[in-house]
Amino acid sequence: MTRDLVAALRQSLGAPHVLTEAVATESFYEDWRGRYRGEALAVALPASTDEVAQVVSLCAGHGVSVVPQGGNTGLCGGATPRAEDGSVVVNLRRLNRVRRVDALDHTLIAEAGCTLAQIQAAAEAVDCLFPLSLASEGSCQIGGNVGTNAGGVHVLRYGTMRQLVMGLEVVLPDGRIWNGLRRLVKDNTGYDLKQLFIGAEGTLGVVTAASLRLFPRPAKRAVAWVRIADVGAALRLLDALRRRFGERVSAFELIGVEALEVVLRHIPGARCPTAETGAWAVLLEVADVDPDAPLTEMLEAVLMAQIETGSVVDVVIANSGAQEQTLWALRENISEAQRIEGFSIKHDISVPVSAIPAFVEAAGQAVLAAAPGARIVVFGHVGDGNLHYNLSSRDAAGNRELLERTRELNRIVHDVVDRFEGSISAEHGLGQLKRDEITRYKGAIELEMMGRIKHAVDPRGLMNPGKVLPDFDV
Amino acid sequence: MTRDLVAALRQSLGAPHVLTEAVATESFYEDWRGRYRGEALAVALPASTDEVAQVVSLCAGHGVSVVPQGGNTGLCGGATPRAEDGSVVVNLRRLNRVRRVDALDHTLIAEAGCTLAQIQAAAEAVDCLFPLSLASEGSCQIGGNVGTNAGGVHVLRYGTMRQLVMGLEVVLPDGRIWNGLRRLVKDNTGYDLKQLFIGAEGTLGVVTAASLRLFPRPAKRAVAWVRIADVGAALRLLDALRRRFGERVSAFELIGVEALEVVLRHIPGARCPTAETGAWAVLLEVADVDPDAPLTEMLEAVLMAQIETGSVVDVVIANSGAQEQTLWALRENISEAQRIEGFSIKHDISVPVSAIPAFVEAAGQAVLAAAPGARIVVFGHVGDGNLHYNLSSRDAAGNRELLERTRELNRIVHDVVDRFEGSISAEHGLGQLKRDEITRYKGAIELEMMGRIKHAVDPRGLMNPGKVLPDFDV
Repeated sequence: MTRDLVAALRQSLGAPHVLTEAVATESFYEDWRGRYRGEALAVALPASTDEVAQVVSLCAGHGVSVVPQGGNTGLCGGATPRAEDGSVVVNLRRLNRVRRVDALDHTLIAEAGCTLAQIQAAAEAVDCLFPLSLASEGSCQIGGNVGTNAGGVHVLRYGTMRQLVMGLEVVLPDGRIWNGLRRLVKDNTGYDLKQLFIGAEGTLGVVTAASLRLFPRPAKRAVAWVRIADVGAALRLLDALRRRFGERVSAFELIGVEALEVVLRHIPGARCPTAETGAWAVLLEVADVDPDAPLTEMLEAVLMAQIETGSVVDVVIANSGAQEQTLWALRENISEAQRIEGFSIKHDISVPVSAIPAFVEAAGQAVLAAAPGARIVVFGHVGDGNLHYNLSSRDAAGNRELLERTRELNRIVHDVVDRFEGSISAEHGLGQLKRDEITRYKGAIELEMMGRIKHAVDPRGLMNPGKVLPDFDV
Repeated sequence: MTRDLVAALRQSLGAPHVLTEAVATESFYEDWRGRYRGEALAVALPASTDEVAQVVSLCAGHGVSVVPQGGNTGLCGGATPRAEDGSVVVNLRRLNRVRRVDALDHTLIAEAGCTLAQIQAAAEAVDCLFPLSLASEGSCQIGGNVGTNAGGVHVLRYGTMRQLVMGLEVVLPDGRIWNGLRRLVKDNTGYDLKQLFIGAEGTLGVVTAASLRLFPRPAKRAVAWVRIADVGAALRLLDALRRRFGERVSAFELIGVEALEVVLRHIPGARCPTAETGAWAVLLEVADVDPDAPLTEMLEAVLMAQIETGSVVDVVIANSGAQEQTLWALRENISEAQRIEGFSIKHDISVPVSAIPAFVEAAGQAVLAAAPGARIVVFGHVGDGNLHYNLSSRDAAGNRELLERTRELNRIVHDVVDRFEGSISAEHGLGQLKRDEITRYKGAIELEMMGRIKHAVDPRGLMNPGKVLPDFDV
């Protein structure tokens, strides 16, 4: 039976594009951080939408489930097969053409296996911007970005992936192709089906191509590192920036001193831009398409006013592209520096923006009450209410002890998030990691509705089993 | 049976809030343009979400369908009951509190029956902007705006209603309340259920409240009336504006000479801003939160460059708020002037922005080949690819003849739209008007998927029957 399916897949794609040997499949069965490892019947590597349709159709015919996989850079195990499911992994890397770019429309149509960097470059080639920007942009694929509704540092200005998708092409669970590759800003002709597949993490179908929104490319930017008095000061500064720059605030990242110090400790050449680290800093960027916009002067005026109110303590505005990169590197190296330091308990949470200071206070108290020695590394996209809230210990032995309490500490942090009407997964999705945890925070009605949608689109439950949805009867 | 239901509704809401007398119900059974007229068992006027839930639950218990209704300003009969369904109209006008406004979060939570103007005012009171803006804003309600994914003149900058909704509260077809009133920019914890209800025109549930995004309020604007060489020049001008002003292009409306002339003919005091009308004009607005932004100077520079290339023929930049209003009035009075002139055959279509010139050319040829004397009134939100494309005749007798050919001429225009991969309803929805017509243009897979979603959420088909979805077995 299994052999029949593999033979049929080889017939369809050509033998070299259906992998079953351990040495060839290994990297497809484990996520890049090595936290999830599974098995599958085979890895299929289709090179066209029709081939994806054939693979899914053959799997459906054999009652075999499908795990769509892009760059395998996810953080929640959403693209890793589970051994018990006996799935076929459908990796989209060979489906990687940019089908069209239209500068006048500000649209681009890309196949699912295009890397994010490839799409950014295709947009730049016509003097446009595709604004999604992630640490993994060299490896992650646009299909995965759609499936996880990816976020990143520019959401504040341009929205998440959901706001950047104008249309989708999807292979449905029965192998039929839905062509919804529209390039329309406005289309009110019934249910907006593409919304179903964005953020569904491959549980409703295989995204094979996306029609994407482009933007005019900023020609000028100003980047500043700002030491602030407290977390509340970050929000006052953000508000002041928005009221002066409007949509031109491109990034606004909060960095707690513990996050900065881990970078200063482990990243060669890193140094604190301000005279003292202080407890909190903000890395901000404003950018304008107009090359003549006096951004630095405007930024100086806003920051000066915030210094006078006491919200801002010290400021460094980059005076060259190189210095901009140096400031950004402090932010971008936090995850790498944490990795060097050792494991930590990570949370990717969001609360309403105005609740950030109270959340940081309440979560800090709750964590330290349970684990007095814990180091709390806080940083993230505070302009979106999204914080990465990571816990570790100051020494290796303490860290091992702390990691053993992961579930307990997850619960403590997530309960505080819930108290502030927040989300326990702001931008990383649920995957395998949080599909059970979410049942504590999502109401029964919402879980039931999710189950109904799943059943309506994938009645046999063949798409990416064991991800997103908790196990329940629908 | 019917009497039982009406008695139970009166018990629940109080007798004065359940209308059955013809004189009281009349305005609820007919759309404001008088194009659709129906009947219902009663009009229920609940004043709280719990009361809406009671009404829907009672109707479900009696197997009676529900027609959600807001300001009744729709253009496609989506909120008008059909006599054959024996529905209960649930009008939301008494559910009209703004529950909270938070300037720091840039969010506002409003009940469905709030008028759009009421919400605009609540945002303004905290120095913020709620950017949705429609001709009917004094009467239309936010619940209807959500249900129809409303558009308007500022979509270019701020998106349609879908981009402005952060969360929803919905009474489901069985009368249960789903509280999805989140205020989070980022939340990736499973399917984004609110997307189902946005644009569903009440066929999946009754929206009772919405959490909305606010923006910083522009402090400065520049408005110009621009006579352009041809339709293609509009796109070149738009591109030039975007590359200089970025997101600050707030409106960009195309106005064909026939549209301008109907205003000059019927609106007292209206006069053409430029020396000659020419064939095509654009009304544009740029706006900035920064009161010091040199918008007029920047605009002059862009327009000057476009005059040099020959794209722009003549320009009037408003030099006062009063003149801005005068220019905007020319655009805003087109519909009213058309109404005075007599009936016309209207189309609300969109195509990819770059296809606008070719669409105007091809549609014009097709229409004039079929109806040589037709007057084609073209205007609309060209920055979104959305045109209002209306046909009439130059004399009353000719117009009567033309109107008799409505279906034929709809078909001719819509077929051209389809050829350019466009939408036959860009912003008005389907309602009763286009739910059959759409089956010609939407593929079978998409129609089937819509039916599956409908069946999953409203298995008994009790929500707003005869709207949006064609009649088919699901």
